[in-house]
Amino acid sequence: MTYKERLAAIRTQMKTDGVSAYIIPSADPHISEYLPERYKCIYFASGFTGSAGTLVVTATFAGLWTDARYFEQAADQLADTGFELVKMKAQGVPEYIQWLGEELSKDEVVAFDARLISVQLAQLLEQQLAPLGLSIASDRNYLDPIWPDRPPLPVAPAYLISEEITGKSTAEKLKDLRQALQKQRTQFHLISSLDDLAWLFNIRGSDVKCNPVVLCFALISQDAATLYIDLEKLSEQEQGQLQLTGITLQPYGEVESALAALPADASVLIDPKRNCFALYKLLPASVRVVQDTNPTTYFKAIKNETEVANTRLTMVKDGVAITKFFKWLEENIGNIAMSELSVEERLQQFRADQDGFIGSSFDTIAGYRAHGALPHYRATAASNSELQPDGLLLVDSGGQYNTGTTDITRVVSLGNLTEEESVDYTLVLKGMIDGATARFPKGTYGYQIDAITRRPLWEFGRNYGHGTGHGVGFALNVHEGPHVFNPSPTPIAIELGTITSVEPGIYRPGRHGIRIENLVLTVPDQENEFGVFYTFEHLTLALIDTAPVKKDLLEPFHISWLNAYNQQVVEKLSPYLTEEEQDWLQRKAKAI
Amino acid sequence: MTYKERLAAIRTQMKTDGVSAYIIPSADPHISEYLPERYKCIYFASGFTGSAGTLVVTATFAGLWTDARYFEQAADQLADTGFELVKMKAQGVPEYIQWLGEELSKDEVVAFDARLISVQLAQLLEQQLAPLGLSIASDRNYLDPIWPDRPPLPVAPAYLISEEITGKSTAEKLKDLRQALQKQRTQFHLISSLDDLAWLFNIRGSDVKCNPVVLCFALISQDAATLYIDLEKLSEQEQGQLQLTGITLQPYGEVESALAALPADASVLIDPKRNCFALYKLLPASVRVVQDTNPTTYFKAIKNETEVANTRLTMVKDGVAITKFFKWLEENIGNIAMSELSVEERLQQFRADQDGFIGSSFDTIAGYRAHGALPHYRATAASNSELQPDGLLLVDSGGQYNTGTTDITRVVSLGNLTEEESVDYTLVLKGMIDGATARFPKGTYGYQIDAITRRPLWEFGRNYGHGTGHGVGFALNVHEGPHVFNPSPTPIAIELGTITSVEPGIYRPGRHGIRIENLVLTVPDQENEFGVFYTFEHLTLALIDTAPVKKDLLEPFHISWLNAYNQQVVEKLSPYLTEEEQDWLQRKAKAI
Repeated sequence: MTYKERLAAIRTQMKTDGVSAYIIPSADPHISEYLPERYKCIYFASGFTGSAGTLVVTATFAGLWTDARYFEQAADQLADTGFELVKMKAQGVPEYIQWLGEELSKDEVVAFDARLISVQLAQLLEQQLAPLGLSIASDRNYLDPIWPDRPPLPVAPAYLISEEITGKSTAEKLKDLRQALQKQRTQFHLISSLDDLAWLFNIRGSDVKCNPVVLCFALISQDAATLYIDLEKLSEQEQGQLQLTGITLQPYGEVESALAALPADASVLIDPKRNCFALYKLLPASVRVVQDTNPTTYFKAIKNETEVANTRLTMVKDGVAITKFFKWLEENIGNIAMSELSVEERLQQFRADQDGFIGSSFDTIAGYRAHGALPHYRATAASNSELQPDGLLLVDSGGQYNTGTTDITRVVSLGNLTEEESVDYTLVLKGMIDGATARFPKGTYGYQIDAITRRPLWEFGRNYGHGTGHGVGFALNVHEGPHVFNPSPTPIAIELGTITSVEPGIYRPGRHGIRIENLVLTVPDQENEFGVFYTFEHLTLALIDTAPVKKDLLEPFHISWLNAYNQQVVEKLSPYLTEEEQDWLQRKAKAI
Repeated sequence: MTYKERLAAIRTQMKTDGVSAYIIPSADPHISEYLPERYKCIYFASGFTGSAGTLVVTATFAGLWTDARYFEQAADQLADTGFELVKMKAQGVPEYIQWLGEELSKDEVVAFDARLISVQLAQLLEQQLAPLGLSIASDRNYLDPIWPDRPPLPVAPAYLISEEITGKSTAEKLKDLRQALQKQRTQFHLISSLDDLAWLFNIRGSDVKCNPVVLCFALISQDAATLYIDLEKLSEQEQGQLQLTGITLQPYGEVESALAALPADASVLIDPKRNCFALYKLLPASVRVVQDTNPTTYFKAIKNETEVANTRLTMVKDGVAITKFFKWLEENIGNIAMSELSVEERLQQFRADQDGFIGSSFDTIAGYRAHGALPHYRATAASNSELQPDGLLLVDSGGQYNTGTTDITRVVSLGNLTEEESVDYTLVLKGMIDGATARFPKGTYGYQIDAITRRPLWEFGRNYGHGTGHGVGFALNVHEGPHVFNPSPTPIAIELGTITSVEPGIYRPGRHGIRIENLVLTVPDQENEFGVFYTFEHLTLALIDTAPVKKDLLEPFHISWLNAYNQQVVEKLSPYLTEEEQDWLQRKAKAI
């Protein structure tokens, strides 16, 4: 079936059902960002491979609502699918709801599959569409009937990780969680989000590409903790270990009947952003539901000393791989054939040589010249560019190690740098330095760091369409909440011990893209009569190329920071490099 | 009655009524910020004179919840009143609701007077307290019975202002408003907010000190517009003029029966932040209520060409008054007796000498030395400091002119500047320049400008507890929405034509306070491949003293901006100054 035929088949079902609009979000029943193959519904329906977007189908229009990160990619992938790109103004805001309100008339029906829509989104749809006289059908699955070879649920094994790695046992984590439930005055707590579950149960798996999570749910109360998981995924020993911690194991699908069977007077804490509407609807109507962020989301974001120490170790390993890669690249460009895909593979090999490497933390973005202007580019056999000793190469990549998760972006000139490229590079670097060296009062929100990072770009009338940074998991998802550095009004304070990326960029479609990204740890700065101040420690250890820098665009502070940072990279990585590699790195790190 | 006796009398009524907590907010039935004497309930009950705060009384505790701007003042004024200061973390967030939730037990009753609580606040109380089993009594007025000499409603005359001043007739404004109602699919629109009403009907009055508004309500539909106002306030000619525009005039109190008499199937747009809960409760239960910001709030914020031109004229007048004042101050300090109150009066005289001056736009803050550290200080006979040729004087003042509204803060050294004072002054100036010269993409929010303004202070571990800036009305309230520059997550984009203050500060309790404030107009900057960019035009025209500046803390950009700004002040004001004044100003404006 072509995409157009699939779209027609969806519309046929809509018509039969009396449905005027059908919403296909990018989600699974855990409201994940990265999806198991089974839940790649947008890709199935439209061919779009980006990790953020929503399809909305009416009788006369079919659109993909997505944000600036994906504009170019979507325009490309949606050609001849019947779907049109609808450019969102802000990341993560369901702007199609307003469109539906304007497009549809009273008594028309908007439908979706409640397993793929968060409680929050379902409530928002209801709140905004009901006053207009529209109604909602939340149990429509129009994909299964037209998707005969839909992939099954993943069956990869899971494994438990030790307290030496995590710094905290599941028993202790459950204790903290139960205290939080008491404070919230709720008896039960449903967790669907896979990274919360992986953190809480010190469990990892490989059900989702790049994210070391395992499909499961949990229902926690003061005296019980039930983990709903495909039991085949755990060894008997691991099952025993969990049971010894007081955890009951139940098959994955049993969570549904457990929710339906909750006592009529029960109270349940659920995170409306991270549970699907289908599970919410199973709760008995009399149950008192408290909607709030999962306590584990806050706990998990604040890395303990063991996690921080393990992350620092991991950064040395990742920095060594990155150093070897860029040395190899510089020494071989123009001498041997290279393409985006081949250098991606070579980088993967350098990482794989490091002890404890598990795999990529996300699909590597190796974007040469114009491809660098696609912030979430992924080279394919069709798009793959041959590299020449000319122009810019952007490499955004990361690794999952058994001791942590990395995410780093560097841009290098392969030759013949233009003035515009140098200026863009310098402004992005200036923004990265301003953001990642910021000193700020306790209680500062991510959007404040975002503004500080963008300012040097704005001064020159430049900007980027994505956020400035995201929380990063420990040996877990490369994107994690609750905090985020972006322009949206998310009042989540930046806490000590959180790890976040700082990654401003400048993109010139058809020409080049620049992004420079380090991960930073929030650490104490000072306390004085104005209060408590925090700042950041740079965790990422990899040279920032000074060759493209235009010194006159930087203030003395930026220059001395850059020189000191690169010197620190030399010092921390040299013990793990050959003499030749050390020489190369020292040369590249020469102060400007 | 002492404050303690008043508190006891409130508690007696609470006990009789079975009420556990009583909330007294700072508001009137129009949810105004500045209040007619009749509604100064917090002052009556506790003696606190600040313009923001909430009293909460329980059987065992009585507190004033207020924000950092008022900490010192409140601590002072609440002594021996029975009320304790509760320090709020954020401005404008009703943090006492959570406290009530923690303090009270199931089935206890929280009470307030629905005429003094916004629809939004009442709903928030309901949402947060009902799940805890608390109930709400919204019709309790415990003040009237203990306030025999409560001031009556004001009776000052109102007047209409011409299109030459406002740039737009009421007929045109009503047309725009009716279009917005159509877009919102609502038939009726209730407006209670006095500045929205003053703008819409091109009417002004003096019912509230410093704010040229008149107490009224309006109910608008496609074919009718009824203004509820004390008819005594308008001349027959003005009544006729309004009626000619299709406006029906009704007595002030009649709005209540009009709301109760709306058709059962009516739809009404009301702004939940700017209407009181009492009026909302009068609506027939079957009426469909759409809660959204008043369209006039958005219209009013965007100044038209006439308003901008009038404002520029006004700024010259105000700048001349400020210049004469600071020259007088410099030349007479140490020679004649001066106090905070006497210089406040002198400044008022200089403004009164200007054509079209009506009065202050807010109570002048003339804070000498430690008093400067109270951001909302108001000198009283008791607090009044004698000025010496030593230390810093902060003057934050503004005027209402028939052609616009001003608001300006300057700090001058009267002698013997300390190193700390110079550094603080320079950092505040740096923040003001960074914020008020920012270039930013269309769609930028106030909290982003706020972060950019604070950054230079944060770098030195300093900060201020108030917002960076507020919208300013045209010949109207000195504080107006919808936009604001502060750290809170208010996603209101900064639109072209809006006027906002930029006023960072540093406060050292017991020592000194610094604040430097200019008003800026949002204007176009550039449009390029990254989108549309805006920037600010400085409207305020008054020398920024360079004497306290430590040049080495500024970047070259700040120094050249400062010199150019001061030179512009000289050029624009000189035509209205004597030769001697020109010489003085030119000397003070000498480039550093």
